Amino acid sequence: MIKVVILGTGNIAKHLFDAFLGNGTISIEQVVGRSASALEYFKKSTQVSKNYKSVKDADIFIIAVSDDSIQAVSKKLSGKMGLIVHTSGSVSVKVLAPHKNVGVIYPLQTFSMNRPINFKSVPVCLEADQKKDLQLLRKLAESISENVHLLSSTQRKHIHLAAVFANNFTNHLYHLAHKICEENKVSFDILKPLILETADKIVDLTPYSIQTGPARRKDTKTMQSQLEQLTNQWHKKIYEDVSNSILSTYEPDHQN
Amino acid sequence: MIKVVILGTGNIAKHLFDAFLGNGTISIEQVVGRSASALEYFKKSTQVSKNYKSVKDADIFIIAVSDDSIQAVSKKLSGKMGLIVHTSGSVSVKVLAPHKNVGVIYPLQTFSMNRPINFKSVPVCLEADQKKDLQLLRKLAESISENVHLLSSTQRKHIHLAAVFANNFTNHLYHLAHKICEENKVSFDILKPLILETADKIVDLTPYSIQTGPARRKDTKTMQSQLEQLTNQWHKKIYEDVSNSILSTYEPDHQN
Repeated sequence: MIKVVILGTGNIAKHLFDAFLGNGTISIEQVVGRSASALEYFKKSTQVSKNYKSVKDADIFIIAVSDDSIQAVSKKLSGKMGLIVHTSGSVSVKVLAPHKNVGVIYPLQTFSMNRPINFKSVPVCLEADQKKDLQLLRKLAESISENVHLLSSTQRKHIHLAAVFANNFTNHLYHLAHKICEENKVSFDILKPLILETADKIVDLTPYSIQTGPARRKDTKTMQSQLEQLTNQWHKKIYEDVSNSILSTYEPDHQN
Repeated sequence: MIKVVILGTGNIAKHLFDAFLGNGTISIEQVVGRSASALEYFKKSTQVSKNYKSVKDADIFIIAVSDDSIQAVSKKLSGKMGLIVHTSGSVSVKVLAPHKNVGVIYPLQTFSMNRPINFKSVPVCLEADQKKDLQLLRKLAESISENVHLLSSTQRKHIHLAAVFANNFTNHLYHLAHKICEENKVSFDILKPLILETADKIVDLTPYSIQTGPARRKDTKTMQSQLEQLTNQWHKKIYEDVSNSILSTYEPDHQN
């Protein structure tokens, strides 16, 4: 059994906890967090504590807190034996120094509080300096996911940026589409099959090969007319920039 | 039986044709197009012609050609009895004048040549001036789709713009994510579950309510560092403007 302590009570802490529960390889020793109400969720199934001074012993300590708090929480673990890991996409493993046994377990998925997810298919990106630590971390990760990858801090930083485009920015484009529908009294539901098919397509085809739309076919008349439909300055800018980026992707000499 | 002639041989022509085939309500009288090789696909199941002067009689003539050619093709139908419709999202029904019986059947989906689609779930947006024409068009549309909507030319123009954001621009963001992965020797496959889940979420939740990421939490440190990771000028602009648009969405006073 791999003994685990989770530090933090947010989305990732909760989804990891759910994935660990009832797993024959993992024993959750404790969940530690500052908020008593957030600890309620974990209390039924393991020991919880609000006190970072009473952290139990474990093989792996998983720091699942906001990026800015990782270092501070890791300092509270001084003197602990075992592997200390964080779960962030953009923070280097180095912030966990001076601990020697350090690593990262970064589940690359968008988690919502009340939306269950099949963790088996969640890509989990791992990093650890020491070979033995990596073996242990891999054993933990492979017990909850069938999609485990080794990534350096630099690679992780880049894929986190890629995820910002593919997830955060894409979701904002959905929001703009939603807004345009609302303002013109058209149901956003009409767009949902399109959104799902657009995402589904990239499972088998490269996004480069299936690009369509006014910018792809250099249809300046439609682009001009659509720009005029937009009233918000940021939305206009997004329309122009993404169109220019599409034009320059297929014609590297494009200068605007 | 509704007698139909399709003018055009592209993606939409082909997907409508496939949806009409074997449908008990519709009889495809003919497919007309300039390219003999493109007509090959239709030849097995209906009559085809390269000559716009030999268009057969029908109840509905469906002009499924590029936006710029719609008017020219419609002029070749002068003297024809029956309803003339085009299939474009951004072109007004008015370009079909001086024909009196005119309309639009706009299937709002992304079609690829070799990717079959379940047409029953494709949203189909209809428009027609005359009540009788609309009844006929609705009968046609409802025989192939369970997702039929009435939209004015103005509403259709707006939802087409919304679709550019939700489909064309989103696909370009996928491409940028793909590029970042390739440049850093990380498999794009790692991002695919995230992309699918991001799209799936908006079926039940509004994009506004589930926005996450550095811009949403005003994490200027991460935003600055990610901007520095980007080297292409258009990608930097997209990063800045989408981030600003997110900031201004949640703080209307945001000015950058």
